[in-house]
Amino acid sequence: MNLFNDDTICAISTASGMGAIAVIRLSGNTSHQIALRIFKRRGKSLDLQNIEPYRAYYGEIMYFVDGKEIISNDTASQNENILDDVLITFFKSPHSYTGEDAVEIACHGSIYIQQQVLTLLIRCGARLAEPGEFTMRAFAHKKFDLIQAEAVADLIASRSREAHDLAVSQMRGGFSNKIQELRKQLIDFVALIELELDFSEEDVEFADREKFYKLLKELKEEIKTLIDTFNTGNVIKNGIPVAIIGKPNVGKSTLLNALLNEERAIVSDIPGTTRDSIEDTYVIKGHTFRFIDTAGLRGSSDIIENLGIERTYQKIKEASVILYVCDVTQFDINELDEFRDYIKSPDKHFILIANKVDMLEQLPSVFRDLSQLDTIYISAKRKENIHLINNDLVEQAEKMHNEQAVIVCNIRHHQALSNTYNDLEAVEKGMSEGIPTDLLTTDLRSALFHLGSITGEITTEDVLGSIFGNFCIGK
Amino acid sequence: MNLFNDDTICAISTASGMGAIAVIRLSGNTSHQIALRIFKRRGKSLDLQNIEPYRAYYGEIMYFVDGKEIISNDTASQNENILDDVLITFFKSPHSYTGEDAVEIACHGSIYIQQQVLTLLIRCGARLAEPGEFTMRAFAHKKFDLIQAEAVADLIASRSREAHDLAVSQMRGGFSNKIQELRKQLIDFVALIELELDFSEEDVEFADREKFYKLLKELKEEIKTLIDTFNTGNVIKNGIPVAIIGKPNVGKSTLLNALLNEERAIVSDIPGTTRDSIEDTYVIKGHTFRFIDTAGLRGSSDIIENLGIERTYQKIKEASVILYVCDVTQFDINELDEFRDYIKSPDKHFILIANKVDMLEQLPSVFRDLSQLDTIYISAKRKENIHLINNDLVEQAEKMHNEQAVIVCNIRHHQALSNTYNDLEAVEKGMSEGIPTDLLTTDLRSALFHLGSITGEITTEDVLGSIFGNFCIGK
Repeated sequence: MNLFNDDTICAISTASGMGAIAVIRLSGNTSHQIALRIFKRRGKSLDLQNIEPYRAYYGEIMYFVDGKEIISNDTASQNENILDDVLITFFKSPHSYTGEDAVEIACHGSIYIQQQVLTLLIRCGARLAEPGEFTMRAFAHKKFDLIQAEAVADLIASRSREAHDLAVSQMRGGFSNKIQELRKQLIDFVALIELELDFSEEDVEFADREKFYKLLKELKEEIKTLIDTFNTGNVIKNGIPVAIIGKPNVGKSTLLNALLNEERAIVSDIPGTTRDSIEDTYVIKGHTFRFIDTAGLRGSSDIIENLGIERTYQKIKEASVILYVCDVTQFDINELDEFRDYIKSPDKHFILIANKVDMLEQLPSVFRDLSQLDTIYISAKRKENIHLINNDLVEQAEKMHNEQAVIVCNIRHHQALSNTYNDLEAVEKGMSEGIPTDLLTTDLRSALFHLGSITGEITTEDVLGSIFGNFCIGK
Repeated sequence: MNLFNDDTICAISTASGMGAIAVIRLSGNTSHQIALRIFKRRGKSLDLQNIEPYRAYYGEIMYFVDGKEIISNDTASQNENILDDVLITFFKSPHSYTGEDAVEIACHGSIYIQQQVLTLLIRCGARLAEPGEFTMRAFAHKKFDLIQAEAVADLIASRSREAHDLAVSQMRGGFSNKIQELRKQLIDFVALIELELDFSEEDVEFADREKFYKLLKELKEEIKTLIDTFNTGNVIKNGIPVAIIGKPNVGKSTLLNALLNEERAIVSDIPGTTRDSIEDTYVIKGHTFRFIDTAGLRGSSDIIENLGIERTYQKIKEASVILYVCDVTQFDINELDEFRDYIKSPDKHFILIANKVDMLEQLPSVFRDLSQLDTIYISAKRKENIHLINNDLVEQAEKMHNEQAVIVCNIRHHQALSNTYNDLEAVEKGMSEGIPTDLLTTDLRSALFHLGSITGEITTEDVLGSIFGNFCIGK
């Protein structure tokens, strides 16, 4: 993948398969010329010089005959060589998605036509785009920084309002601005170091050193705060992990079905969702929840050695929300003993789901003194009070998400920020050990590099390849 | 489904699922107003009066907040309420696909965004379009006749060049013109009848009656010719039926695989083909072939009573091409005896595929005297000479297709033409029996009705419902 290619690329940009219409995109220096070779309006070619950009032209895409384009003005013979009626729009550099001259062709959505239009474009000199190549060109032409480009992929993949809004915010530069600001502070810091070096003969060192420490501390704190948002960011992108646990036969599966039944209807209104959906992920009021299968939990300590059970406990550990389901006719408060730590933990939200309330006239006395526990009384079988669980989950999600303005949700960014943090720590350590400031520049340069790699001010081919390789073709 | 609805409809017009971009269409009187309620350019609404049609506007689709659209000019708060960056194009009646005011919104192709844009449009007063409703509106506004509208659905479904070109030709009016011409002749005929009635007191009857017969005969012939193209039309749309038959273990499956291997690679380059493909249908040089599974053929007459075998023979009967595969090391000319009729039939193309030539140094004498049979010598295992079969199939397809200029490929059209033919035959019979011409008008009116129903000059709600109900949504 080459950032500096300026040949013309083409791809089908709409979802694959048959549709009423499909859109094929071209981008590059010769994109207008190439499109004009196969496009006619009532049998006549358009003149490149007179193309009005951003205007939708209606006309025909012509087959090539015997490998040659149609030039004849004999309308009758042309009719036989019409591939499709299309709408075509020309975009002029720099005002296009990629920043290059570009073309969008909206044709009928048969697979045959889509394939043929692509074939014709390739025959006329375009090249099939690699995944993400349109967005990579947008990056190369500074329409986007790397954070924004990555957010485009997240945007397309997002399935909940939370994940979508996070991607939009990153696309629009929220996170980029924060990183730019941090980078500017770091550059200021380096400037101070250099200032100190310039004046190293004089007696100004101490005052500056204090300023150094302060700046360094602030920077480290800000970066640490960002790093800490990664968990939230991850949860927004992939869903809040919710573990449904409890003894066998307390109604876990019935509850799961009741939860999914109530909400999955919304999800399945969306065409294609079923195909893409991860099992047991669902969306309530814009928040994604990811259910964790905890089958195998017996609550009996002597089986815990079993590896399967071990794994279940590991998953409970990773969950943000634990729905502990019990059967009200058989509940024993002691079964919760092993979860004491989770009940108290500020990182976990532990809810006791008291199921099968339809089996009893009156609740057993054990439920009278559960004030320290969030408890929801339901009948999973009759689907009673399931909405209370949903409300509680949504409340929990909103609490998690509203805390931070800028959120890290990309593992590459998380890694780069962690590296920056480590570099700054090395600088701090070096300073405290009295290492001469001019020897700290390696770590400082490394910190600047890592910070710059996030927005793409500093990049390598490898990084770009792995980022854009994950895009879909046509974007 | 109501032809005369003029409310505004909306639908996702691109293939379902996730893509780089998706296109959502609106059509109807209020489509511009509705689109403008959710679209902003740099935070500002566009003015309906100043909309330039056919121009691609770049801007944002805004979420509604608390059920209300965004009107504030506070850019900061607006940023949070951006659903997506989109390209939007306005079309002005009558120059749009439907003939109505229309809008196309090209948004990012996440399922979430597609769904949200639709939801917003519906909230602003649009209605989700029924399948084919855009094309039905185009028909209602006389952008298309019914033949052309039906061809749109065929166009989208077509997978081979033959099927595609047939749909394009019908979309562009080839078949419509033919039907109009026939209808005009029929109307001329009715005019003559009326002329005769007007002058019935005078002695001009005989000359006219001869003219009647001539016209009637010509009309019937033309309609018969069209009816007879239906088989070809059907073959173009659904593929030429090819039966691969032969005794067990002669290499039928190996041959099928060799044929498919060679050609399916081309098909599978096309995204989505695999999902849509009918098993054992494949395309060679623009022609679709449909393989008929004839497993179970033993060539032994005493098993023929078996119902499964019976079905196999039925399928052989329906095939246009029969590939009779034999093993050259074991071939006995007598096994062909039961297929004598097919070998001689002008409606069938019977090819003897002599397989396993790699097993012998020299061909057995039986093959020396096969001059009356098309024979192709192959090794399916080594994939030798498979291309000769492909060439033969293509030649066969071209022979079938090149005969007619106008082809009937729709069962509804076939039915209506057959009805017209029967009506004309009734008129002819009546005339020969000396029934007074004024009593023939019922049959003549019926003939005109059936002919008119093809292009949609005469329609019923039922017919329209069944035609457009088979479309995909968004077209």
